[in-house]
Amino acid sequence: MSFLRDSKAKSKKVIFFGDSITQAGVQPGGYISLMKTMLAQQGITDYELSGAGIGGNKVYDLYLRMPEDVIAQSPDIVVIWVGVNDVWHKSSYGTGTDADKFEKFYRAIIKQLQANNIKVVLVTPATIGEKNDYSNQQDGDLNKYSQIIRNIAKDSNLPVCDLRSLFHSYEVKNNTANVDRGILTVDGVHLNDAGNKFVAEEMWKVLKEVK
Amino acid sequence: MSFLRDSKAKSKKVIFFGDSITQAGVQPGGYISLMKTMLAQQGITDYELSGAGIGGNKVYDLYLRMPEDVIAQSPDIVVIWVGVNDVWHKSSYGTGTDADKFEKFYRAIIKQLQANNIKVVLVTPATIGEKNDYSNQQDGDLNKYSQIIRNIAKDSNLPVCDLRSLFHSYEVKNNTANVDRGILTVDGVHLNDAGNKFVAEEMWKVLKEVK
Amino acid sequence: MSFLRDSKAKSKKVIFFGDSITQAGVQPGGYISLMKTMLAQQGITDYELSGAGIGGNKVYDLYLRMPEDVIAQSPDIVVIWVGVNDVWHKSSYGTGTDADKFEKFYRAIIKQLQANNIKVVLVTPATIGEKNDYSNQQDGDLNKYSQIIRNIAKDSNLPVCDLRSLFHSYEVKNNTANVDRGILTVDGVHLNDAGNKFVAEEMWKVLKEVK
Amino acid sequence: MSFLRDSKAKSKKVIFFGDSITQAGVQPGGYISLMKTMLAQQGITDYELSGAGIGGNKVYDLYLRMPEDVIAQSPDIVVIWVGVNDVWHKSSYGTGTDADKFEKFYRAIIKQLQANNIKVVLVTPATIGEKNDYSNQQDGDLNKYSQIIRNIAKDSNLPVCDLRSLFHSYEVKNNTANVDRGILTVDGVHLNDAGNKFVAEEMWKVLKEVK
Repeated sequence: MSFLRDSKAKSKKVIFFGDSITQAGVQPGGYISLMKTMLAQQGITDYELSGAGIGGNKVYDLYLRMPEDVIAQSPDIVVIWVGVNDVWHKSSYGTGTDADKFEKFYRAIIKQLQANNIKVVLVTPATIGEKNDYSNQQDGDLNKYSQIIRNIAKDSNLPVCDLRSLFHSYEVKNNTANVDRGILTVDGVHLNDAGNKFVAEEMWKVLKEVK
Repeated sequence: MSFLRDSKAKSKKVIFFGDSITQAGVQPGGYISLMKTMLAQQGITDYELSGAGIGGNKVYDLYLRMPEDVIAQSPDIVVIWVGVNDVWHKSSYGTGTDADKFEKFYRAIIKQLQANNIKVVLVTPATIGEKNDYSNQQDGDLNKYSQIIRNIAKDSNLPVCDLRSLFHSYEVKNNTANVDRGILTVDGVHLNDAGNKFVAEEMWKVLKEVK
Repeated sequence: MSFLRDSKAKSKKVIFFGDSITQAGVQPGGYISLMKTMLAQQGITDYELSGAGIGGNKVYDLYLRMPEDVIAQSPDIVVIWVGVNDVWHKSSYGTGTDADKFEKFYRAIIKQLQANNIKVVLVTPATIGEKNDYSNQQDGDLNKYSQIIRNIAKDSNLPVCDLRSLFHSYEVKNNTANVDRGILTVDGVHLNDAGNKFVAEEMWKVLKEVK
Repeated sequence: MSFLRDSKAKSKKVIFFGDSITQAGVQPGGYISLMKTMLAQQGITDYELSGAGIGGNKVYDLYLRMPEDVIAQSPDIVVIWVGVNDVWHKSSYGTGTDADKFEKFYRAIIKQLQANNIKVVLVTPATIGEKNDYSNQQDGDLNKYSQIIRNIAKDSNLPVCDLRSLFHSYEVKNNTANVDRGILTVDGVHLNDAGNKFVAEEMWKVLKEVK
């Protein structure tokens, strides 16, 4: 009985916190679903994975709904994956997020999670357009915001799954026709099957090291 | 002695919470400074007015810094005056605020203030450009966001100082040359002497009714 | 024979020059098609109406394709109806047209048409959103650009079909529920049946006076 | 005497056609002024260099004023350097230029110059921000628009001075602190002394090959 409780106590509750990409991640074939299957196949049973993604979310949307959607769920680990809309909505709606505000809210999320004894994993925004030569419209800004996240990870001593960098390397190698979609995404942003698999694997590499 | 304490206990602490317009409001000649003088001249001594305005702030910036800058100061009343940057920054930086997000954060601010037993006064964004015929670039959007605030005031049963409407009436009457600045503002947005006086008077009309 | 030639010589070739609204205008039920029917019913046979509208066009797109699409067709009268995309694309793509450039290209179009002995009719951009209280996001900017066109019409002594003003009056009277579409448009911009009829009638009032 | 006329006939009139960078290029120390000095020092006397740059110009502004400012001056060669504002103004004013429209106007300029027997040299937009790792906000879009120009150069068999690529190589080598200004520009966009020298040299390398 106490064995059972110990065992249960060791189970890690992980919430993936993000935007539409994460909202799709819990669907069949999504990166969170794939990770669940992957762990089951490897006989890893002490992780409980769930998603808290909402389409169109920017960093301040995460901050606003974090108390209810994340902290109230008492997770052990939260994986924050945000940034695409903060950059993208600048040109599509005029409602992106300034770089300094992005950093401010990002750090506020981390601070509040840590104040609740929740471990944090950071993720850089992967891509808006899959061209491999930094000629997608938002590449400069995505690189800039990714660097903000890397800097936060560094000075806060937090693990980061650097999808921005990993996607770029993958595209250089695999996207030889330099197309803007169809390699890891369906539309330049949202993951296709290969993308979901790639993300599931890369995220797990980082996640499994969080003790 | 107890008389003194009672008297002191009845003093109302008011924080004006907003952007650069409110940041300037505590300067000599600013609308908050003028209101202080105005109250002193009328022998009204049971109000303690202070400003919590920061340049460039949008509604979510207020939400982020509210715990420290406002709630920790234990005010009795908070006057929320925000919206100009939420609209303006759409075209100047691509980082304005979506209408639905504006409303969501606005309501979240009110909710949290009320949860701390703080009374709330709403204010509509006055103007970006003083032309009197709704031909300033952001007039449509300012009207839209002002209507959001009026709707919140109505369904939350909160007092509103409708500067948007008051400024328009003033401009129709006094801005006969239909210029875009110099009547109530120096630059179309920030208050000149007449503007500070006008705002001090109009805000006080609403504020004095808050019991 | 000479009688025939004289008769033919008196026929006025009119090109409606614009964006997607005009592109739809030549479709069955479109405002140009309706105007043709209207004239036929009234026994007016000396007008030859055609459309030169392309979706997404802004004022400089008209300027670029004017030699081929308009001047090469040798019209007697050109009705210029442009401006919605110049305003709208500011927020939807970041690629609208600055007010001063709008005026510059607009005047350049008129100048070149007049240099080819073509008579010109101006039209103000009708609407982006049908709310009747100037609370549609782009209302301020649409009013501003419409005023530019009215000023050009005035100082160039040209006829103007002021749809911006006519639509507003119509909405105030008929859009009592203050909805943003469905009165004269299907989506806030493109004309429905009532809108096509309204535009056909209002344009004809101006067009028939052009001698 | 006839010798003199022949000699004079061989003098090549070159117009640098562009935006504020070119407007500054004719000032003392500007890239056009430096090129003049450079050629004089090398004893090259058969080039007549002048600038036709106007601040804030985008590709369609060049198209509009080309007949008067360029073609009427009867140049032998025109160096087109445009693109920074087409990209930059998307986020700063909401009035940048769509990629497809950029290409359309760019090709229209070339076509009209060539129709007037003027030789054309293309130039890619150098930089908005000098960070060397493609983390300047507009880097993706600048790369995209530069690629459009390279493609035009290729399929039109025209010489191109690829400043975008040359600046990047220079920054990688010389901007080791990865600052965003001060290496080749004063503000991330407009050339400093080193930048003017660099541009003068690189442009001349291309220009001297135009026969």
